[in-house]
Amino acid sequence: MARWQPNASERLVVAALELFEERGYENTTVIDIAERAGLTKSTFFRHFPDKREVLCGGGTMAGLLVEGIVAAPAEATPLEAVAHALETVGKEAFPPDRREFSARRQAVIAASPELRERDALKGLGLTASMIDALKRRGVPDLISRVAAELGALALTIAYERWSDTTNDDEFSDLTWRALREVRAASGSC
Amino acid sequence: MARWQPNASERLVVAALELFEERGYENTTVIDIAERAGLTKSTFFRHFPDKREVLCGGGTMAGLLVEGIVAAPAEATPLEAVAHALETVGKEAFPPDRREFSARRQAVIAASPELRERDALKGLGLTASMIDALKRRGVPDLISRVAAELGALALTIAYERWSDTTNDDEFSDLTWRALREVRAASGSC
Repeated sequence: MARWQPNASERLVVAALELFEERGYENTTVIDIAERAGLTKSTFFRHFPDKREVLCGGGTMAGLLVEGIVAAPAEATPLEAVAHALETVGKEAFPPDRREFSARRQAVIAASPELRERDALKGLGLTASMIDALKRRGVPDLISRVAAELGALALTIAYERWSDTTNDDEFSDLTWRALREVRAASGSC
Repeated sequence: MARWQPNASERLVVAALELFEERGYENTTVIDIAERAGLTKSTFFRHFPDKREVLCGGGTMAGLLVEGIVAAPAEATPLEAVAHALETVGKEAFPPDRREFSARRQAVIAASPELRERDALKGLGLTASMIDALKRRGVPDLISRVAAELGALALTIAYERWSDTTNDDEFSDLTWRALREVRAASGSC
């Protein structure tokens, strides 16, 4: 039996980020990552299915989005329910002390076609989760799809701005602003 | 030098579709596809980089969308330029005699996680192409992103409806209708 490792997941993520920055994603192995984190390969695979998932794990975020949409007030419009979800994500997943880490993560993903692909697919998964959650609120199919697409775009824009370390705004303020802008743009295009 | 093969690409696509239907995507090799088409493996690789691309090649469609957006009248709104592009795609890529083939292709893609993933990534590539083409018309970044997302959603919906062989409507009528519906939904969500 392996011993329990405190914060193993977090240590693996930090080790992976450092190594991808130093020598590139392609030139880093799972064993390198585990060694840098002071852990074993089997501990790595207890936390992540493969090397790509260390930086692109999106399970938590999908859960937070669904939770936020389901918990939005009954009278909220579909887009207000999505805004509620983005706020939940902001509070849980993007506290101010994660900003620098996110900027580094973004740069590493941008540099690797394989990570960009995985990240894009995770984004599609988040949109699908929002569509399902909106339908569970009784929102018609087409409106659910449009609201989820606009919400996903707002989330992407907010995340881009938040990952810019010269920006001081809190994540939830950025999501509200992005959603207002996306909404206005959809009315004028 | 290999001899020139008439319609080699089309024959490979039809052979691949038949084999994926008969024995599944996972259980079909590139050699199987080439043999069924009466061609060689090296002819296959002159037309497609790998097995997934036979059904998910999206290069032509991206080109048609860009062409349609660039050629739209100068006074067209961003979403009208997108509608113009979807109409171009409909005429060139989805003539009525492709409907049954599309329905079969959709079923094969739905049955394979690997093909679903590739198809989703192709869809993201189409959205990115539309964003670039809109920006070339001088449309601001955010409005280009929103118009391309709404256009991509309309294209997906039109394609879903068109691939339903009980539906008699022409592709271009379906894209206009889907775009009107998506636009209305964005105003009411």
